[in-house]
Parts: sequence; structure tokens; C-alpha cells
Amino acid sequence: MKNNNLYAVILVGGSGTRFWPLSRKDNPKQFLKIFGKETLFQKTLKRIRGVVGTKNTYLVSNQAYKKHLAGSGVPLRNILLEPQKKNTAAAICWAALEIYKSDPDAVLAVLPSDHLVVKEKNFHQVLNRAVDAAKKDHLVTLGIVPTRPDTGFGYLKVGSSKGGVLKVQQFIEKPKLAKAKQFLRSKNYFWNSGMFIFKAATILAEFKRYQPKIYRLLSENAKVNWSKLPEISIDYGIMEHSKKVVAVAAKDIGWSDVGSWDSLCEVLPKGKGGNIFRGDVRNIDSRNILAWGNNRPIAAIGLKDLIIVDTKEALLICQRGSSQAVKNVKKI
Amino acid sequence: MKNNNLYAVILVGGSGTRFWPLSRKDNPKQFLKIFGKETLFQKTLKRIRGVVGTKNTYLVSNQAYKKHLAGSGVPLRNILLEPQKKNTAAAICWAALEIYKSDPDAVLAVLPSDHLVVKEKNFHQVLNRAVDAAKKDHLVTLGIVPTRPDTGFGYLKVGSSKGGVLKVQQFIEKPKLAKAKQFLRSKNYFWNSGMFIFKAATILAEFKRYQPKIYRLLSENAKVNWSKLPEISIDYGIMEHSKKVVAVAAKDIGWSDVGSWDSLCEVLPKGKGGNIFRGDVRNIDSRNILAWGNNRPIAAIGLKDLIIVDTKEALLICQRGSSQAVKNVKKI
Repeated sequence: MKNNNLYAVILVGGSGTRFWPLSRKDNPKQFLKIFGKETLFQKTLKRIRGVVGTKNTYLVSNQAYKKHLAGSGVPLRNILLEPQKKNTAAAICWAALEIYKSDPDAVLAVLPSDHLVVKEKNFHQVLNRAVDAAKKDHLVTLGIVPTRPDTGFGYLKVGSSKGGVLKVQQFIEKPKLAKAKQFLRSKNYFWNSGMFIFKAATILAEFKRYQPKIYRLLSENAKVNWSKLPEISIDYGIMEHSKKVVAVAAKDIGWSDVGSWDSLCEVLPKGKGGNIFRGDVRNIDSRNILAWGNNRPIAAIGLKDLIIVDTKEALLICQRGSSQAVKNVKKI
Repeated sequence: MKNNNLYAVILVGGSGTRFWPLSRKDNPKQFLKIFGKETLFQKTLKRIRGVVGTKNTYLVSNQAYKKHLAGSGVPLRNILLEPQKKNTAAAICWAALEIYKSDPDAVLAVLPSDHLVVKEKNFHQVLNRAVDAAKKDHLVTLGIVPTRPDTGFGYLKVGSSKGGVLKVQQFIEKPKLAKAKQFLRSKNYFWNSGMFIFKAATILAEFKRYQPKIYRLLSENAKVNWSKLPEISIDYGIMEHSKKVVAVAAKDIGWSDVGSWDSLCEVLPKGKGGNIFRGDVRNIDSRNILAWGNNRPIAAIGLKDLIIVDTKEALLICQRGSSQAVKNVKKI
């Protein structure tokens, strides 16, 4: 099952603020135990383990998160710690350069560390198909079949299919609701999952072409002047320009980007009254609420459609459907 | 203005649970700084000060609250500490016996310590009228003119007026909504405020008649066996039986019993959007909410008609209109 040329590049540098107050500057979402006893990062490592060994696993993260990476089982030399956040293009270019040096035939599976993929077997099948396409010099992106007109995702517009691989015609930024509804009906649109598969050689050639500054700075033998690196995502920096982009449909892999408290409510199992409780919650007649407690008891009386997150440092109370606004709260 | 025979008997023994989690067993409502910098108890003391001096002020409270009474300015010998809570009848009988011993002509104004009376001048006028009636051997109760069909109060049904004093025909327990609406329309009903004015001699005679056991036990020279005292309110024990009860209408005194978080919301000044905030509240699009913070910031997003009380020990979140149910929460 394992493919000696396949490498996992796990992006562990995100600083999501949308799970505030549970996620905080030094404890972002990928390090939260939102589902069961493992963090999303640990689940990501486990998920890839059947396909890629630890020797072929690379982490790109941030100096600030060093302590969270201990115990990952990934060899120290495979852990790339950026001194400064520079978005995904620089992170991926760095990993590709490192891996290419020792294996010019390497195929990389670039994976976010803070998503949920429940159906691992299906995911592995999708990944294998993507690897096959990547070997043909494609930049492969995994497209998620939309299930609702979500305005929080980027979309891929795909064209004709060729051996299970779809030509990507356009990357579309977060659309307005009317557009999103249209995309949902059309069947030619996927959610952009942020999971990419390509050969190190292919992506480096595209960096040389579309992001020559990033390529040049990171290829220098001298110490990289990190502050000079352009801060841009792989989507903006490469995918929207490259002619080599294709999509593989990731059907039924149980994916969620867990992008907000609202999306978390969708995927967590519900108890009586549609409620989701963590900690000591004393409920009287509340329905469809998420109450995420810490040590103190929470009394919830007559509530409906609320998100309550109680941490030692701060308290969030939010109407369901409004949790995107968490990013606008002045954080402590 | 001061009346040498007038005494204030302030009931400071209540253990209200309806302001949980702010009020707690050892810190009941009368000791909370709900309005400004003074507790409701301190406000009660101040309010009576213009009419009754500290020498004529008596506190009936509980051993457990001793520390809260220090600094009240009331002479130690006027502070009566019950070893056990026995409701208002016993408390009032004890104070009446103590005061009667040194002043057989004493008139007592019995006042709860956890109510709010904003218009003090009007209150003093009402009190003077009540004292005049009390001197004529009446048991005077202050009746509040209802402003809404509240089902949380007891009501007084009054008959004909005689010199500003109304004959009380009936004490009515907390009514159902339909009844309360009828009472509001009729104009012959008042809310029972729990403020009473009578001569010590009058009330003691009524105790002898209607609560002989309380009278006898408390009159004994030996140490009172407190556990034997009947636990009954002055309303049930005396007022509902006595033929001497009259009411004085307490019009426009700015009264609130502050009986629940909901009733507190009614009397506290509102800010933008009808919100009431204490502490560090970071609001985005919330309306008509009370957010009562402690030290931690509270982020409130898109909320409507909620009561949020955040204390070190517990968190309450309650739909407005449901705060009576706080008493049903399993307390910590």
C-alpha cells in the first residue's frame, strides 16, 4: 500500500481565530481536542499513517508551536519551523525544495492539519487516484462535493473528466449566497479543500514561473531572509495561474474544515433536544445549543440555537449562524 | 422629622436563591451591589436614616451573615441574630418583644433589606401616613399599585378608604395570569410589599392570639429552644387572620422587590440596543440582553433577550422571561 516516493507535507502553522476563545494565539485549532481524545493534528497524522510512513512525513509549522509538535513521531529533520508566518505558498515551496533534494521523484500530498476526514478508507482511495494524476505532471486539488450553498469556501469550477480527473477551469473566491446556490445546483463546482497532490518537480517548476521571488529566496544556500518572502497563499500564488491544475472529486470522505463553531455543531453528535454539551451543563428546557464548558458549571435555561464556549480566559455566547463574526471580536 | 417612638426593624435574614449564581448561600441578594456601589442592605439603612436614627434601628438576621452587618452603624445590642432561619413571623415577634421591653409605645416599621425604593421622599411621606394609622392600633401594610399582571407577587384586596387608609379584605397568594390581569384592571388590588407598620403592643397582642406558640417561646426568660419555633411568614401567621389590617397605598415610590434577574432587567438603566452590561462585554449586534461579567471578557454575538451572569464559580445563561426557573437549577 505504501508508496516510497509519496510524502506527506502537513501544514501545521495556521493561527485560526475562529474558534476563539477555545483556540488562542498559542493554541490554535489544530491543537484542540475537539473530537475525542486526540487533537485535529494528531488525527491528521494518524489518517496519513496507512499511506505514508513517518520517515516520509514533513511538518511545516511555526517556531511558536514547537512544543505542540513533540511526540508526533516525525523525525526532527522533517520538521520545518518558520520564523515568521508567510502563508501557504512559502511553506509548500520550502518543503518541496527540501524533499526534492533527497528525492527528485517525490510526490507530495499537502494536507492541512486542522480538518476532519471521518471516512479514512475512502480518503485513501481518493488519495491514490490523486497520486496517479500527480505522476502525470498535474497539480491535483481534492474537490469536495458541495452539500449546501456555503459562502465560506472557495470553489473550483471544473470542466470535462478524463479518467476520473477533472480539468479545473477556474478558482472562485468565497461567493455571495445567490452564486453559491447556483454552484450547488450546477454540479460543475466543488469546494476547494486545501488538499493538494503534486510532484515536487512539478510544483517547483511552477514556483519558478509564477512565484520566482519565493523560489529564489528559499533556494539560496545562505540563511533565508524570511521577512522578504512574499506572503501569499498557494491558491492565489500558483493554482489560479497554472495550466496544470486538475481536480479529483473527494466523494464521501466525511470531510469538514471545522471552520467555525457553527460548522462544528453540524458534525458533532447531538444529545437530547439537539444539544451538544461538554463539561458540567445544567439544562432546563434548552434546545439546539452547544455548551462547551470548562471547570465551572453552566446553567442553561430556556435557550434556543446558541453557542456557548466557556474558557478560563474568556466567555463566548453567540447565536447559531453568527459564529463567523467571532473573528471580529476584539480578542484578549 | 424624627419620631422618638418610631423604630425600624430591618429583616436581613433572607437567603434568596433567585439571583444565583451572583447570590449564593453565604452571600444573599441583600448583600449584593446590584445598583451602584452600595448593597441593597446599605441602601435600605440609608433610606430609613432620615426618619429613624441608628439607636432606634434593629436588624434581625442570621448568625451566618454576621460579617456582613459589621459597619452598619447599628448598635450591637440592636442586632438580633437567629441561630436558625424561622421565616418572618418569629423574626418580627422577637424584635417586637425586645423593643417593647424598653418602649411600650414603640411603633415598628418592618422593612425587607433586599428591595429597591428609588423615590425616598415619596417613601417617607407614605411611611408617615402609615405611622399615623399604626398609632390607631392598626396593622398597616404598604400596598404597591400594580403596573403589570405579575404572577410572582401576593396581592391585597382592599375595600373602602377612610382618611387615606384602606381596609384590607383579603390576602391573595400568587395568582394565575388571568386573575392577575383581572386584579390589574380592577384598581382594588395592590401588591403586598412586605413592608409593615404597627405598634409593638398591637402586633404582640395579635401574636398572643394567632401565634401563641411563637409568642410563648420567645417570651420565656430561659434560652429559647429555636428548633421548636414554628416556621411561618408574618403574612400567613398573622396578617391573614387579624381584623386590624389596613393598607396605605405606596404610590410612586419607585419600588421593586428585585425578585429575579428579569425584574432586575426592568429597573436597571439600559444602554444602546436596550442592553445592560457590567464588566468587559464585547458586543456584536446583540439586543435586550443583560450581561453581568466578572473578570473575564464576555463576547456576545447576535443575541436577543438573554440574561448572562458570569461569576467565578458558575455561569448562568437564561432566556429573558424564564429567570424564575433559576430556583430549579441544581446549585453548586
